[in-house]
Amino acid sequence: MSGNSLGLLFTVTTFGESHGPAIGAVVDGCPPGMALCEADLQFDLDRRRPGTSRHVTQRQEADTVEILSGVYQGKTTGTPIALLIRNTDQRSQDYGNILETFRPGHADYAYHYKYGLRDPRGGGRSSARLTAPVVAAAAIAKKWLLEQYGTQIYGYMSQLGEIDVPFEDATFIADNPFFAANAQIIPELEAYMDSLRKAGDSCGARIEVRARNVPIGLGEPLFDKLDADIAHAMMGINAVKGVEIGSGFKSVTQRGSEHGDELHPDGFATNHSGGTLGGISTGQDLRISIAIKPTSSILSPKESVDLEGKPMTVQTKGRHDPCVGIRATPIAEAMLALVLMDHALRHRAQCGDVHHAFPSIQAARPGSAAD
Amino acid sequence: MSGNSLGLLFTVTTFGESHGPAIGAVVDGCPPGMALCEADLQFDLDRRRPGTSRHVTQRQEADTVEILSGVYQGKTTGTPIALLIRNTDQRSQDYGNILETFRPGHADYAYHYKYGLRDPRGGGRSSARLTAPVVAAAAIAKKWLLEQYGTQIYGYMSQLGEIDVPFEDATFIADNPFFAANAQIIPELEAYMDSLRKAGDSCGARIEVRARNVPIGLGEPLFDKLDADIAHAMMGINAVKGVEIGSGFKSVTQRGSEHGDELHPDGFATNHSGGTLGGISTGQDLRISIAIKPTSSILSPKESVDLEGKPMTVQTKGRHDPCVGIRATPIAEAMLALVLMDHALRHRAQCGDVHHAFPSIQAARPGSAAD
Amino acid sequence: MSGNSLGLLFTVTTFGESHGPAIGAVVDGCPPGMALCEADLQFDLDRRRPGTSRHVTQRQEADTVEILSGVYQGKTTGTPIALLIRNTDQRSQDYGNILETFRPGHADYAYHYKYGLRDPRGGGRSSARLTAPVVAAAAIAKKWLLEQYGTQIYGYMSQLGEIDVPFEDATFIADNPFFAANAQIIPELEAYMDSLRKAGDSCGARIEVRARNVPIGLGEPLFDKLDADIAHAMMGINAVKGVEIGSGFKSVTQRGSEHGDELHPDGFATNHSGGTLGGISTGQDLRISIAIKPTSSILSPKESVDLEGKPMTVQTKGRHDPCVGIRATPIAEAMLALVLMDHALRHRAQCGDVHHAFPSIQAARPGSAAD
Amino acid sequence: MSGNSLGLLFTVTTFGESHGPAIGAVVDGCPPGMALCEADLQFDLDRRRPGTSRHVTQRQEADTVEILSGVYQGKTTGTPIALLIRNTDQRSQDYGNILETFRPGHADYAYHYKYGLRDPRGGGRSSARLTAPVVAAAAIAKKWLLEQYGTQIYGYMSQLGEIDVPFEDATFIADNPFFAANAQIIPELEAYMDSLRKAGDSCGARIEVRARNVPIGLGEPLFDKLDADIAHAMMGINAVKGVEIGSGFKSVTQRGSEHGDELHPDGFATNHSGGTLGGISTGQDLRISIAIKPTSSILSPKESVDLEGKPMTVQTKGRHDPCVGIRATPIAEAMLALVLMDHALRHRAQCGDVHHAFPSIQAARPGSAAD
Repeated sequence: MSGNSLGLLFTVTTFGESHGPAIGAVVDGCPPGMALCEADLQFDLDRRRPGTSRHVTQRQEADTVEILSGVYQGKTTGTPIALLIRNTDQRSQDYGNILETFRPGHADYAYHYKYGLRDPRGGGRSSARLTAPVVAAAAIAKKWLLEQYGTQIYGYMSQLGEIDVPFEDATFIADNPFFAANAQIIPELEAYMDSLRKAGDSCGARIEVRARNVPIGLGEPLFDKLDADIAHAMMGINAVKGVEIGSGFKSVTQRGSEHGDELHPDGFATNHSGGTLGGISTGQDLRISIAIKPTSSILSPKESVDLEGKPMTVQTKGRHDPCVGIRATPIAEAMLALVLMDHALRHRAQCGDVHHAFPSIQAARPGSAAD
Repeated sequence: MSGNSLGLLFTVTTFGESHGPAIGAVVDGCPPGMALCEADLQFDLDRRRPGTSRHVTQRQEADTVEILSGVYQGKTTGTPIALLIRNTDQRSQDYGNILETFRPGHADYAYHYKYGLRDPRGGGRSSARLTAPVVAAAAIAKKWLLEQYGTQIYGYMSQLGEIDVPFEDATFIADNPFFAANAQIIPELEAYMDSLRKAGDSCGARIEVRARNVPIGLGEPLFDKLDADIAHAMMGINAVKGVEIGSGFKSVTQRGSEHGDELHPDGFATNHSGGTLGGISTGQDLRISIAIKPTSSILSPKESVDLEGKPMTVQTKGRHDPCVGIRATPIAEAMLALVLMDHALRHRAQCGDVHHAFPSIQAARPGSAAD
Repeated sequence: MSGNSLGLLFTVTTFGESHGPAIGAVVDGCPPGMALCEADLQFDLDRRRPGTSRHVTQRQEADTVEILSGVYQGKTTGTPIALLIRNTDQRSQDYGNILETFRPGHADYAYHYKYGLRDPRGGGRSSARLTAPVVAAAAIAKKWLLEQYGTQIYGYMSQLGEIDVPFEDATFIADNPFFAANAQIIPELEAYMDSLRKAGDSCGARIEVRARNVPIGLGEPLFDKLDADIAHAMMGINAVKGVEIGSGFKSVTQRGSEHGDELHPDGFATNHSGGTLGGISTGQDLRISIAIKPTSSILSPKESVDLEGKPMTVQTKGRHDPCVGIRATPIAEAMLALVLMDHALRHRAQCGDVHHAFPSIQAARPGSAAD
Repeated sequence: MSGNSLGLLFTVTTFGESHGPAIGAVVDGCPPGMALCEADLQFDLDRRRPGTSRHVTQRQEADTVEILSGVYQGKTTGTPIALLIRNTDQRSQDYGNILETFRPGHADYAYHYKYGLRDPRGGGRSSARLTAPVVAAAAIAKKWLLEQYGTQIYGYMSQLGEIDVPFEDATFIADNPFFAANAQIIPELEAYMDSLRKAGDSCGARIEVRARNVPIGLGEPLFDKLDADIAHAMMGINAVKGVEIGSGFKSVTQRGSEHGDELHPDGFATNHSGGTLGGISTGQDLRISIAIKPTSSILSPKESVDLEGKPMTVQTKGRHDPCVGIRATPIAEAMLALVLMDHALRHRAQCGDVHHAFPSIQAARPGSAAD
């Protein structure tokens, strides 16, 4: 299976370039009989869409998705679901000179030397625009997981550059362009972004993703452990440089007497594990944290070389996100959904229906993200 | 492909339980014609082996590997290479009572509810012992990568619990049981471990892994990016809770003007990327960092429940590593080698021979791990 | 990898239903740098297209393919190539009553009980229309194989119902609607089809496929042997019930002294093997023969049951091929091309460049198909 | 997944060479909780074993299998089941001169030019001996399918060289070395084989394989159709040159009015389809027929070339089967079992439990193989 497919049984294959005629995905392996229509996919697509606030790229794309197959009379048939999104705002003249050089921090260099040629328009295949079909495909997975197991997946920004963004209340997340679970801090975040944009610079971010009501038993050790596949999915998102599960890097300084989550008759006492043990879900909430690097496309000039290795200066123009992390929350949710969906099917294949064994594992508490 | 295989083209399938008759691996897809014998595999197996210092488990295993197939007259034939390691020190009585309970922080709980039953002897399939066949298989990959591209892979411990272990000189790594690239700090590490053992507790660690002379172009976006597959492999190691590439979580607070590595005619100026751009290797050194949680098997009692959900206290006996991170360095190297090997073959399949395009990308400087 | 993808490295994923808005394919893993445009794909699509003679379905479809991605400035970039074919002639009213019953010999019954529901319009996913994206995708493989190795793939009809169609000259194939390599027999074939149509019945056919200038060494034993993968691909074509390689079923009555192809300094003396030994290509011409069953959709009434198991009579209306074998030749060629392409990349991955070892293996003799 | 693994979810990976220290398999993905011991595997291994009559190779191998992992207290645990068979009778001196030449009809030539070197001892990896681990692995699948669905798989020889072997009664199969379902014909078969052996020649055979009580719905179109995967598995068996499902090549001369199996309230009226429609099982008996070529290793001299392409004469010595088809029945059953097992798990993954929809599909009639 080549590199543009994700998932062994719920397999998503994406295609397209930032400034080509269209982008899209084929979703193979979806269980039959689930109600599905374009509106089910559009909700998350709209959350990811550019141009929705002054803090993100001003590229205007409706990101309207068309379902080409796999649905009959409003229900999935079990055959491949093809999703098509036409590109409408392709001002590739903005990128005219980038074919002759390698933008620092960009995929240009690597694509050029891997393939011997590249589509330079808007970053081509490496553009963050290609997360749109993933988000659309994952909406199918989210719907199925919710209907089957009540699984809920949500994310939020926990850090923007140097600014910590404490979790207050999940209901705030939908009300601000940062996906912050915190209402008070929004003015500070806006001021921070405005000054950054004025400086022609960019910053990183940290995103948290959670899943609750995850069935026990998902994950296929020794290599396709649930946490390993989550790490794979998350690190594959554009600009991600680090992934943590549960206590993550904090566990380096923890003691075993502290880290190991004790079990009580009514559930686990703590959740340092982040919801997996031995690479298998325990039914506790999944807790993942990812680091997103600052956007490489900045207005400030940087030194680079041209195709012949001669020194030159690169100054990016065009419409860029000064912090790609701002739009990353629905993408991270999508990747988690795809992994869980695939593993739910894999588990069902080998072991039959999922177990809901231990009675009251951290009952879902909507609106709370506390560990 | 079920969960106990790693790699699309260089495929390693492992089998075995900690206290079963044998453990091993089948390595499929190895290029033919490479000289190979058991001694080539034993070197890294011995680095990983238990019982070599007082700071690790005292289980005595020779970990002698037998090559059952795939080699004729000292050369690989291109057919599967089966590796067999007989278990010799299986004192399963040490673990007698653990079948009735779930040890906090252990895979017991998850295996039990996934499969409905489990092999409790020594952790069964979830034991760190199962990293031995991986290390043996990866020695084949290391050899091929070195012969083909001069690729060198090495790791070291950079933190033990609260103690930073600064990189001094790679030549020190082989001289101490901690894989520290630092000679002076060894007494402090030993004292730390002694007191931990006395307290019946355990601690975490941080391991760095590096690869140099990595061919340009490895990685298969959008999903099988090199860094994504590395994250998958690393997070799949027992007890790993976090993975970073390049600047990792530090990139959250970096600016784009700082993070993006500038290019000069003689190579990249810095290496914040960690050796990949857009998920494809750039020829720069790969830089990975992983967080290892404290061992769950500790002498101190912890609260848990039995199979019926009734409360009880667990006190682990037996021979355990008080810091699994101490023996993790060769394992992390092994996982990186397997990922690089698989991607070298995948790249060759689609694009033909690797490019050595940009002249002097960070020439290999043996003995140096500076960024 | 779910069931709608073919190929490990050159991976073709198709989507679409006969009467949905569109059908298509995503081709992942194509080597970069090859010239490619829509016209390259249209040639074989037109050979497969319905409505081109009175002996095939009169459905009118332009089968115009659009390349949505993976090509930049006329060259493949190494990223996924998405192919889109809009359906234009969907008279689904012709099939109105078939949702309530199971047509004998059709996939209706199996789809219904597998998925619990089905798209009945024109056979939905099981329609032979879905071979169009395969033919388009395979045109890419054919082009690459020809450019890289001079590999030529061609097929022809060797039997129509009871009528043997002797191979005379490959140049005739393109000149008749039957893909017969024989000019004289065409009137007999036409009369045969006319009488069959008048009788409201259908017939089977036998198709031969050949490849010459196949590199030595393709095939990945023990399970992904070249002949095994060819059998997989061929048996997967709609209506195929049998596959032979080389002497096929005739080898049951052969002696070893006859069957084993002797080698001479200038090549193999015979080709009973059909071009593979031990599941690996020998450089000899590949020789495959397939059996295609008579079309199930016939005008004559047949007995069946409805969804509740009650007896009823089915009489198919609509526009059907009275012999699906007539249009099967380009489809069989396509499947062979996809298998060879995938194996060429797999071989290159493990073993590097292909061998052209034994000097003069059956030099390609254009226009000859003699064994 | 490299070429020595079969199955997406029930994955069998084999290893070993004819005259190496051992052969074996790793079975990954087996459902947990099934009773399993070595005796369960030995039954079919003994049916396949050489040296059991004068009509097959006289090589003496106990073919005793050892289960190394994946079973605890007599039950499968869901972890990989490793199977080991030590080679004991490796008289490789018998094959001393074959390294310098290519035996006509043998895999020597192809292996040599694919890999650049080969293990010549007893055919190395290409030996029919490597079907032993497959048979052992498939015994696990057979057991699970029988316990879960009552699926029964059996095969028999239907033709030996020119001699038709009519099906009489399945109970005869176990009573003769030919796997003939016919008692009267045995003397004729024995005389035929004796004369063939005297002539230093070999012959082909035709084997039928059947499965009954196959769940409805197995098969993953469009590419991993059940019949396509069966064809793949069967053509991958050593020496197989043709595969038929249902009416096979006879369907070329059938009419649609005859071929399409009508449905009645109590089941299908006929079984020309062979148990699949649209690549999905219908619940009818699966009917497969395969052609096996005459053994290549014969005593009569044949012309060939040496490694430098110079002409020479090859005369095989050693212990060979004069008809490999004689021992092929349990192997063909094994391959069918592996395909069905994998598809049962794949179906369960996507669609949940199997349907037993249409009431009385050809109720199993033990002892009958009539169509």
